[in-house]
Amino acid sequence: MLTYSFENRGNLSLYEYLYKQIKEDIISTKLRSGDKLPSKRAFAKHLNISTITVENAYAQLMAEGYIYSVAKSGYYVSDITPSKNTYNGRELQRSYACEHNGVKYKADFVSNATANENFPFSIWAKIMRETLSDKADKLMINSPSVGVAELRNAIADYLFQFRGMNVDPERIIIGAGTEYLYGLIIQLLGFDKKYAVEDPGYRKISEIYKANKVECVHLPLDKNGIDISQLEKSDADILHISPSHHFPTGIVTPVSRRYELLSWAAESDGRYIIEDDYDSEFRLSGKPIPPLQSIDVSGKVIYINTFSKSLTSTIRISYMVLPEGLMKLYKENLSFYSCTVSTFEQYALAGFISKGYFEKHINRMRNFYRSQRDVIMSCIKKQPDFKKVKIREEHSGLHFILSVDTDVSDKELIARAARKGINISCLSQYYQKPAKSSDHSIIINYSAIDSENIEEAIKNLFDCFR
Amino acid sequence: MLTYSFENRGNLSLYEYLYKQIKEDIISTKLRSGDKLPSKRAFAKHLNISTITVENAYAQLMAEGYIYSVAKSGYYVSDITPSKNTYNGRELQRSYACEHNGVKYKADFVSNATANENFPFSIWAKIMRETLSDKADKLMINSPSVGVAELRNAIADYLFQFRGMNVDPERIIIGAGTEYLYGLIIQLLGFDKKYAVEDPGYRKISEIYKANKVECVHLPLDKNGIDISQLEKSDADILHISPSHHFPTGIVTPVSRRYELLSWAAESDGRYIIEDDYDSEFRLSGKPIPPLQSIDVSGKVIYINTFSKSLTSTIRISYMVLPEGLMKLYKENLSFYSCTVSTFEQYALAGFISKGYFEKHINRMRNFYRSQRDVIMSCIKKQPDFKKVKIREEHSGLHFILSVDTDVSDKELIARAARKGINISCLSQYYQKPAKSSDHSIIINYSAIDSENIEEAIKNLFDCFR
Repeated sequence: MLTYSFENRGNLSLYEYLYKQIKEDIISTKLRSGDKLPSKRAFAKHLNISTITVENAYAQLMAEGYIYSVAKSGYYVSDITPSKNTYNGRELQRSYACEHNGVKYKADFVSNATANENFPFSIWAKIMRETLSDKADKLMINSPSVGVAELRNAIADYLFQFRGMNVDPERIIIGAGTEYLYGLIIQLLGFDKKYAVEDPGYRKISEIYKANKVECVHLPLDKNGIDISQLEKSDADILHISPSHHFPTGIVTPVSRRYELLSWAAESDGRYIIEDDYDSEFRLSGKPIPPLQSIDVSGKVIYINTFSKSLTSTIRISYMVLPEGLMKLYKENLSFYSCTVSTFEQYALAGFISKGYFEKHINRMRNFYRSQRDVIMSCIKKQPDFKKVKIREEHSGLHFILSVDTDVSDKELIARAARKGINISCLSQYYQKPAKSSDHSIIINYSAIDSENIEEAIKNLFDCFR
Repeated sequence: MLTYSFENRGNLSLYEYLYKQIKEDIISTKLRSGDKLPSKRAFAKHLNISTITVENAYAQLMAEGYIYSVAKSGYYVSDITPSKNTYNGRELQRSYACEHNGVKYKADFVSNATANENFPFSIWAKIMRETLSDKADKLMINSPSVGVAELRNAIADYLFQFRGMNVDPERIIIGAGTEYLYGLIIQLLGFDKKYAVEDPGYRKISEIYKANKVECVHLPLDKNGIDISQLEKSDADILHISPSHHFPTGIVTPVSRRYELLSWAAESDGRYIIEDDYDSEFRLSGKPIPPLQSIDVSGKVIYINTFSKSLTSTIRISYMVLPEGLMKLYKENLSFYSCTVSTFEQYALAGFISKGYFEKHINRMRNFYRSQRDVIMSCIKKQPDFKKVKIREEHSGLHFILSVDTDVSDKELIARAARKGINISCLSQYYQKPAKSSDHSIIINYSAIDSENIEEAIKNLFDCFR
């Protein structure tokens, strides 16, 4: 049986160390594709550790795609070598617009606003006060185009500690929201490039490309994310994806596919990948998956993330990490732009992160979202019609998918829910390319739901299925 | 002699009322081009008001181009009917880059940063605290794409009271800096349009058009601003100007030319004028000139202004006022964008304006800048070589032009000043089109100068001319 010594694990927890050792053996092909791993119980006994520890390590390896499980058989090593053979994509559905803006809902499963009561006001106010009194001089000095050094340093430290990313603060650019940064990226990479986005996907991304009059193609997904054969065929230059947690499907792109994507990008000079890591902080089980950026050795990945999602959507601070070559290009061509975030909020956020409040906030929010999800799940399971639904991708991020066995059309489902004061959206709405399917999948975004309303909302929602 | 009754002047001051009456008579052609106005003293005696009152009214009419003065003769009514005959533009000079970034200067006449000690920290901090405690709920609600209503209302009120503009708050869009708004305007008006900017001009504007890969032409100025014949020839769709106070020349576009510009825009559907009113708050004499926006009846003017200039450059809040048709287009095509300013700063600024602090701040700053200017002027006048220089456009904004009679090249002037720890820029640097001229004009931007350093800086600067 596989044997690992835990003597040199340093600061790592048992589970992290075990996960790392197995991962290294898979990457070095000491463990090969198809090899069966020991059962959790036997492995634990053999290594003299708890079954939970093995379970956590396996869960992390599964989430990252290094291993897979076969029901009633066990865990096997995945094929992580890049391949051109990809699953051919699901059938696509016709999209239609959600027309319920401006209405007050009892329960809003569409909004990505963050829950009011969770923002640490008193701490933010304290930090703001401290910033105003301690940094009076600094606050009046114009921010460099890329953002103030204190914030970029704090972000680099955070990315290192919590995301395992080794990022030079000199490669970070701060901006007022990811939407603004997308615009900068277009100016940086070129209006003459062809941009590819995920279909289904976060609608705003393609809207931004459209508003900037650049060519934008929509690529289908298979169960592991972007379909490489379609990507090759598309002739795209730039690929814009969220591999750590795709919206709305929740797909996590496994490591093998990540290498394929990087390999695609490395094939040609003008190719780049925009990696949108928008809610990686809120993975509810296991450690977050290492981003593409951290395994990119060819300088092909633009990593982008936002505090508007992790802190509050009403604070507009996002950042991107550019590869060296693009940072040079930015400095030459675009550094005349003023930073779009005020120095006040930049220094406040820097203090908030470096004093450990951000980490605490993320941990608290993760617990909050986990309990939100659990409440919703248990409400769903209590419904008499529970057998009509399937829950998918509930382990990561702030939403999951509720697939419903019903004859009611998606459009009618949305309308019925709206009449009951519930705002929902369906997976079919996020597709660009029309397609037929009898699948009805509702996206349950629970970040902004008042927990008191959950029970009633779920009951009312189920009434819509009949 | 002209006679006006002051009985129905309402809340207006005597000077404002007199100014308005004369202006109306000029617009209605009761007073015609070339008509001589009464002398100040005689007019004051006739109307039974003080000479100062008449003087102020005349100064305002002069600044707005309704009247002009002839030395030793008196005041005459201008020709305010649009005409195609325009002064043919000055000779242009070769531009070269200013290479002194990153250096600490004893006196920086280039930086447009605002003076540290003048930002009302304690009030801003107080408002921030109040905002955090009083508006906790509102702060967590996502801002509409155009910005929160409270701030748009506060801006509309301000524009009405202090700029005489009647603006519907529903036509205001808030954004993180004018540079960001320029980008939005391009997306709104089209990447296929031809944009015209002023030459010389604020360099960043053409850099933004260049970065967005839209066609951008540079139009020469005559003494009244954009040369209309050149504008007609250029085949431009969009004209981007700062008519209230042009940077760097300081030219104030008079009313007659304003009507010509509006007439140009009205000639064709696709034409618009972007009116950049960036420092209108800081006019040091008379009331600020009414913006193009307020005399535009064809929905052709996009008015744009910023708090980054009037409050502090480190707070990134700007706004634009769109004509109705464009606002409709924005709502249809671009309202998916999140507002780029955090709700915290939007509500704080709304409170700051509506509680009257902004007005107080502007008044205080205007006094501060006036005294800065006066100190610099008196220092200049004390120099033994005073006769070598001419001061131009010192009445408006935060800078003036110092024309120097010297054989030293502009490049050498800048280098000499830099060696003495003084950062200056020359008018020639702001031209896009190379041209020859023996004129040496230094732009004296005094917004960020420490008043203690002025005397020494001016002395050292004059040493560079020899």
